[in-house]
Formats: sequence, C-alpha cells, structure tokens
Amino acid sequence: METNKKTIIVFSGDFDKVMAALIIATGAAAMGDQVTMFFTFWGLNAIRKPQKVKAGKKSFLQKMFGMMMPRGINKLGLSKMNFMGLGVPLMNKVIKAKGAMTLTQLLEAAREQGVKLVACTMTMELLGFSKEELLDGVELAGVAGYLAEADEANVNLFI
Amino acid sequence: METNKKTIIVFSGDFDKVMAALIIATGAAAMGDQVTMFFTFWGLNAIRKPQKVKAGKKSFLQKMFGMMMPRGINKLGLSKMNFMGLGVPLMNKVIKAKGAMTLTQLLEAAREQGVKLVACTMTMELLGFSKEELLDGVELAGVAGYLAEADEANVNLFI
Amino acid sequence: METNKKTIIVFSGDFDKVMAALIIATGAAAMGDQVTMFFTFWGLNAIRKPQKVKAGKKSFLQKMFGMMMPRGINKLGLSKMNFMGLGVPLMNKVIKAKGAMTLTQLLEAAREQGVKLVACTMTMELLGFSKEELLDGVELAGVAGYLAEADEANVNLFI
Repeated sequence: METNKKTIIVFSGDFDKVMAALIIATGAAAMGDQVTMFFTFWGLNAIRKPQKVKAGKKSFLQKMFGMMMPRGINKLGLSKMNFMGLGVPLMNKVIKAKGAMTLTQLLEAAREQGVKLVACTMTMELLGFSKEELLDGVELAGVAGYLAEADEANVNLFI
Repeated sequence: METNKKTIIVFSGDFDKVMAALIIATGAAAMGDQVTMFFTFWGLNAIRKPQKVKAGKKSFLQKMFGMMMPRGINKLGLSKMNFMGLGVPLMNKVIKAKGAMTLTQLLEAAREQGVKLVACTMTMELLGFSKEELLDGVELAGVAGYLAEADEANVNLFI
Repeated sequence: METNKKTIIVFSGDFDKVMAALIIATGAAAMGDQVTMFFTFWGLNAIRKPQKVKAGKKSFLQKMFGMMMPRGINKLGLSKMNFMGLGVPLMNKVIKAKGAMTLTQLLEAAREQGVKLVACTMTMELLGFSKEELLDGVELAGVAGYLAEADEANVNLFI
C-alpha cells in the first residue's frame, strides 16, 4: 500500500471537533501515513498541560486568556448540546459504554503512532503560551512550517 | 475535461454549512466529478429520515441524543442569526424568491447526480443511530473508508 | 522552490477564523504561491465596504440581512470568548502589543501580494449584496469558478 502524508489544522478547541481530528489522524497513521496536526487558536487548548505551569512574563490580557481557556484535552466542551458542561460527561459515558476511545486515549494513541503534534507559534505568542505549558514532545512551527508540510501532503484539512 | 474525485466531510449539522457542502458537491458532480460526502457527528442529522423509525435497542443516553438531534435536513438550524429557529424560514423565503434550490432539493439533486452519501459508522454507534433511521441508499463507512477515498481525490474538504 | 496554488473557502465571518485564513493566504503568497480566497455566506462580511453603499433594489428580507450582518472586516466578532463584542478589542490590543498584524493589515497585505479575493455570486444574490457593496477589486465567481481553481491547487481549505 502506498503511504501518504496528511496534515490537519486543529483550529477548534471543541471536544467533538478535536475528536474528529484525532480519529482521522490515528486512522491515517494506522494505515501507515505520516500525519501532522497543527494546533492553532482554540485548538491549542487540546495540547495544554492540565496542571498550572510557571511560565515566562505575561501581560494582564495574556494571563486572562490563559485563565479562561481550557487547560488540556479533558477540559474541552462540545460545539453543540454542551448543556453548560454536562454534554461532555454524557458523551464520555456513551464513549465508554461503547468501548470507544476517550479524547485522552486518542491523543495518547496519536503520540504512540508517531503523529506529529505541532503548536502554532503565532498563537502562542499572541495568547502568551510558553512551550512549558504545552504537552512534552509538542513541536513548534509557524505558517511557513505548515505550508511546507501541506505541500507534501495529499490530504489537508482545516478543522 | 478531466474529471476528478472530491470528498467532503460534513461534520456540521448547520443549515448553512450543509447547504455549502451540497452546493459544492452538486457543482462538482455537474462537472463530471465523482463526489463522496461523509456525514459524521452533527452532520448525520442531515441524512436522518424525517419520520420516527423503530430502531434497535438504545441506551437512555442514546435515546436522549436521538430525541434532541434534528430529524432530517428540514430541521437544521442556522449557525449564525438563527433567531431561535426563525432564521431558517426567512432563509428559505429568500431562497424561493430567488428561484434557488432548498436544502431538500439540493440533497435530492445530489442523489440524482450520483453523489455518494456515506454515514460515519462510529458516530452511528456512539449516538445509537441504526441504518433504518437514515435515508435509504445511504452507505456506511468508517475512517478507513473515508481515507481510502480521500487518497484518490484531489479536493478534500472538512465542513 | 516550486510554487503551488492554494484555495481557501472563507465561509465563516468570525474574526479568528478570517484571521487564520488570511495568515495562511499571506504566508503562502509570501512563499510565491498563487492564492485564491473565496468568500461565501458569512465570510462575505469580511470584504464588505465599511460605509453604507447605495445598492440596487433589495427585498425586505435582504435589507434586514444587510443591516444585521457586519459591515467589513473591522466589525467581525470572535467565534469564542466574544464577551458581547469585548473580545475583539482585547484581541486587537494583544495583536498590537505583540507587533502582529491586525485583520485590516492582513487583508491589505493579501491584496498587495496578489491574493485573489473572490465573492461567491450565489450568496450575493441570496442575501442581496451588489458588487458596489464589496471592496473594490474583489472578483465574482460561482461554484464552477471555485472548482476550476481547486482542481489546479494542491491545498484546498474550507474555513
């Protein structure tokens, strides 16, 4: 089987959209494809460390953004039917009942399969995220890095 | 004219996004392209049968999801300016005044043109949708099925 | 370096999504790529002129849509954490503090770099926008025009 490259821009920080992105990424990696996920804007929340991390100097606004944005993949909300936060535990209940993978397990699987996780440096700078606040092993790149990979890929999605 | 393959993941169940997806799909089919639409997550609502269908056993949560999610393409809401449901009748009024096609007509046209409609099996399992609840003629596939088609296509969109 | 073509459908009229679209577009143009942005549905708001323009006859509903939709790129709201309009000034403050480009500057840069800005004729007809209401230099095309360009491009995104 010929293997191909895939890129996925994860712009959204919604539970359901991140789930879709991870299912496509792990599916493609399982078929032998090289997959790169670029986390940008709200998507960056999916690769934040859950714990509070001492980071460099932040402006007041950056501190505010940091505080208000979900800390890691376990804190994401649904894009629809979120029911003020109740939607995700319900969704997780269904996922477990069906023996499907939770978001955390999907992300872990992606890492084990060698899916490349890249954080958008521009968003990091704007919102004041330092590398230490993101999961270990996450790479950093800007738009040029994204485009270089997209040019080599045969499927490029924006989620 | 060379014809090509296109795939569209319809993740969204919003009236306007489903409309955009169908316009691209029918446009490409009219130009001779093979088009596959993968309906996943909320997008699945667009290919539900409007009537209630006796389906297999569902868990309480699956029944709840089934009840709360729109039943078919005529029940979708706008992503913006929905005005608590008023947005769609207004949009439909404009569509008819302009002699454009309604969502139902676009979906019908897509089917007549041979656009392949595929339901995501993983979402179906999670949310408890059976094949009988979806429009006749809809095919079923998982992420591997999607990737196989995307690899052959020259345009792959996530909507 | 080989140069390639890129197309971006800008469906969303959200500040953050339009920003992402413009960053990818200007980044690709800077690398020598030909880039076409298709503004459709709410995305059309990003290329409206800020001032009121005498346009042709509009139906009551079209007038209403015209009035309620943001007039130009400076009036867009965030898709998340909009805080009833407060999110954008805060975001702009961060952008300026970091020496990054505002949306208006990004759009200007895109135009200077030769990024092709195309308005979707179908949306224009539906919502009653005339060419005069859109920024000068914007081209018009339908779905066939989009598909012709997408067929020649190696990266096609829907934002």
